[in-house]
Amino acid sequence: MSRHHEGITGRGRARTAASDEDVLARLREIVGAENVLVDEDKVEPYAADAVKEKFPPEAVLLPRTTAEVASILKLANERRFPVTARGGGVGYTGGAVPVEGGVVIGTDRMNRIREINADDLYVVTEPGVTTYALQQAVEAEGVFYPPDPASYKTSFIGGNIAENAGGIRSAKYGVTKHYVIGLEVVTPTGEVIRTGGLTSKNVVGFDLTGLICGSEGMLGIITEATLRLLPLPETTRTVRATFKTMAEACACVPRFNRARVTPVAIEVLDRNAIAAVETEFAFGFGADAGALLLVSVDGHASEVERDALICERVVRDGGGFDVMRSETREEEERLWDVRRAISPALKKFGTMKFNEDVVVPRSRVPELVARIEEIGKLHDTFVVNFGHAGDGNIHVNFMCDRDDPEAMRRARAAVRDTFAFSVELGGTISGEHGIGYVKAPYLDMALGAATIDAMKSIKRALDPNGILNPGKMFL
Amino acid sequence: MSRHHEGITGRGRARTAASDEDVLARLREIVGAENVLVDEDKVEPYAADAVKEKFPPEAVLLPRTTAEVASILKLANERRFPVTARGGGVGYTGGAVPVEGGVVIGTDRMNRIREINADDLYVVTEPGVTTYALQQAVEAEGVFYPPDPASYKTSFIGGNIAENAGGIRSAKYGVTKHYVIGLEVVTPTGEVIRTGGLTSKNVVGFDLTGLICGSEGMLGIITEATLRLLPLPETTRTVRATFKTMAEACACVPRFNRARVTPVAIEVLDRNAIAAVETEFAFGFGADAGALLLVSVDGHASEVERDALICERVVRDGGGFDVMRSETREEEERLWDVRRAISPALKKFGTMKFNEDVVVPRSRVPELVARIEEIGKLHDTFVVNFGHAGDGNIHVNFMCDRDDPEAMRRARAAVRDTFAFSVELGGTISGEHGIGYVKAPYLDMALGAATIDAMKSIKRALDPNGILNPGKMFL
Repeated sequence: MSRHHEGITGRGRARTAASDEDVLARLREIVGAENVLVDEDKVEPYAADAVKEKFPPEAVLLPRTTAEVASILKLANERRFPVTARGGGVGYTGGAVPVEGGVVIGTDRMNRIREINADDLYVVTEPGVTTYALQQAVEAEGVFYPPDPASYKTSFIGGNIAENAGGIRSAKYGVTKHYVIGLEVVTPTGEVIRTGGLTSKNVVGFDLTGLICGSEGMLGIITEATLRLLPLPETTRTVRATFKTMAEACACVPRFNRARVTPVAIEVLDRNAIAAVETEFAFGFGADAGALLLVSVDGHASEVERDALICERVVRDGGGFDVMRSETREEEERLWDVRRAISPALKKFGTMKFNEDVVVPRSRVPELVARIEEIGKLHDTFVVNFGHAGDGNIHVNFMCDRDDPEAMRRARAAVRDTFAFSVELGGTISGEHGIGYVKAPYLDMALGAATIDAMKSIKRALDPNGILNPGKMFL
Repeated sequence: MSRHHEGITGRGRARTAASDEDVLARLREIVGAENVLVDEDKVEPYAADAVKEKFPPEAVLLPRTTAEVASILKLANERRFPVTARGGGVGYTGGAVPVEGGVVIGTDRMNRIREINADDLYVVTEPGVTTYALQQAVEAEGVFYPPDPASYKTSFIGGNIAENAGGIRSAKYGVTKHYVIGLEVVTPTGEVIRTGGLTSKNVVGFDLTGLICGSEGMLGIITEATLRLLPLPETTRTVRATFKTMAEACACVPRFNRARVTPVAIEVLDRNAIAAVETEFAFGFGADAGALLLVSVDGHASEVERDALICERVVRDGGGFDVMRSETREEEERLWDVRRAISPALKKFGTMKFNEDVVVPRSRVPELVARIEEIGKLHDTFVVNFGHAGDGNIHVNFMCDRDDPEAMRRARAAVRDTFAFSVELGGTISGEHGIGYVKAPYLDMALGAATIDAMKSIKRALDPNGILNPGKMFL
């Protein structure tokens, strides 16, 4: 099997029982011939995720119903071929990629929202709906689904649940698992189970809903989800400020809370991120901008106004300069442009971006970023840090050239050092991207052997034949 | 084994290898002789929970450290005797009760709060701290732990996690599992594992933290917990109103949200609950009071004032009368007195209270309560309904005399009918009490066979010898 971080990127098409003609014939019976893709050019879009390493599946199946998914799993257990579920395919750790071959189940056609209940504050949806479409649909009914991973316009809600996606609003609203109250799941052996239900409170049996969230498609395939909703906040405001140092910027974070404000988002950019967007897009930041903070508040119009003023005062008192506070939606969008500009601005620093998402207790972010700068120098790799200061989840981007094996090796060494230091600070190696195959070599840096053994024993109990998403999480 | 709902209440002391002298000698070595209780009068306080059925343990162990707990579990696996963990022992489904004998591990001495970090918004605590003590300790630092089960003054935080406790504030703040970010757990086989960590965002491996929450002491013993905190709200206000009907009262619930208010608590009392407290304590409710709503809001002083006014308008527009709105903390306490009066007022209706905690989508509460009234009449059993209207979690109290077997039989029939109708309405048989041995006979009314099988396979994988808390959840 290929390991991204060991330097082997992708590989040719695998060959398992999934390629046997009689198996393909039965798969065509199950989902319909037109929903079984085997041609090289047809399966190619299902071969990679945002990591961009290609592992072409032997076949892509596009079921419409839970029963079809269950039949596929039954056959896979009978004939022993790997099955990997795929949502939008925009993950950063290869969770949806069939590294050991077999079939990919694309949930593209399971894309109906079944019920939006604004009175009882839930939505029932199939897994193939994009996060954005779901948000738009519920907001039209006056209700709110808070989790918003950066890829929300293309990620599927099923993938969000499988990866327990985070996002910018998690500083106030938490992560995907805090909103999942019920699931229909096809188990690795092809049984259909229902976990949780329509209510937030539910303590009937073990919390399989909680276990499936973030299980990276290894313990079941989500075929329906019930998500808890909130009343839609009336409005939002944003304050932006630059600081001389990351320490000054991050010191503001607990001060918002002490002033009894819980910002919906607290995003930070380090000096390299600011310099990169400045070079590319000329926002007008000076050379003294060592860190940038974006703070958003939401709620009723009147309290949002007051909270924004409090945030402005906190950042000014904390050494912030070039402070801006939005008064309108348009102004707010402009303040956030700098955050959206990072990814395009990074392109010129290399064809390969090691986009890691370490997390530490938020007061340790300045130490983390300072050390990552040193790590970048040590391994001669350009690094940009930005991310969610409100919950200590920093996106560390080591940039290099994909075709330069020596630079790739140095970048990988920098990633390993960053993981080690994150754990040393009381944090861990992934806040929202998951493990997949990309971070599997580092799992034991974050978890003890007994903890990993407990996880493996659960995997074996539910998937005795190792059918679902093999080659992930555990080496 | 005794089954509460089958009419056998409690039983004599069991006899397993835990009573062997050499085992007791080794247990004394592990925790110290003074922390091994075997005398009948000493173990008696550890024999029952709020269900009040006695299952005396063969020995009670009071360890101080994680290592001691692990050693007990290793010995239990070697010699095959049951181990049941116990917190405050105030559960309603027998989760902490050793129905198959063996030892009880009391976490009474594991009662230190290890770290309160107000900047990074977490607390690290041992399991034997009461919920109330934890809340007081963190509030002294300006931070807030929202979950507040009714028994919070005596329940232990370890038990809250094991049962995924709910409470009054869950309408706004969710339940215990939404606050647990890290655990140290001794597995059923005596391994020490750490799950999660100090950060809210953490997607490294399967979410064992989520699985252990609500696992009722069957998958591990919690020896340390890290809980997420929030900034402490500045103040609270309460609005109380009576209504002619339950339907009118409950119709207000979504209207609060539509008015962009998320009350911290929305509690409801049915006509029988009002009549009971009126008879006993003379609050001054008239015969036309068919339902009572208590609505609390929290936050900044200014928004609390506004939100309370909005709630007052909603209940008035919705047919509420005798509307009262607190202006001070003292007034608020007086408004809540009626809720606290229910339990004492019920005492005269019978020595046995079947306190069930069904949950339905909140718009279905009026249907549920109407049907429960009919069920009570059908089975000639007095019933009182009250509870958490904000999340559809209703406490159904069928009252009868513990010494009247016929009345007990009728009450049990009423409970079963109530469970069936709750499931029919899209709800389930427990919102916050769990299953334990009390609701085990009804588990298959709420969950399908494949779902139960998945749960059992996880139990077997982690506890191959069936050591931890046997006789619970599954029949």
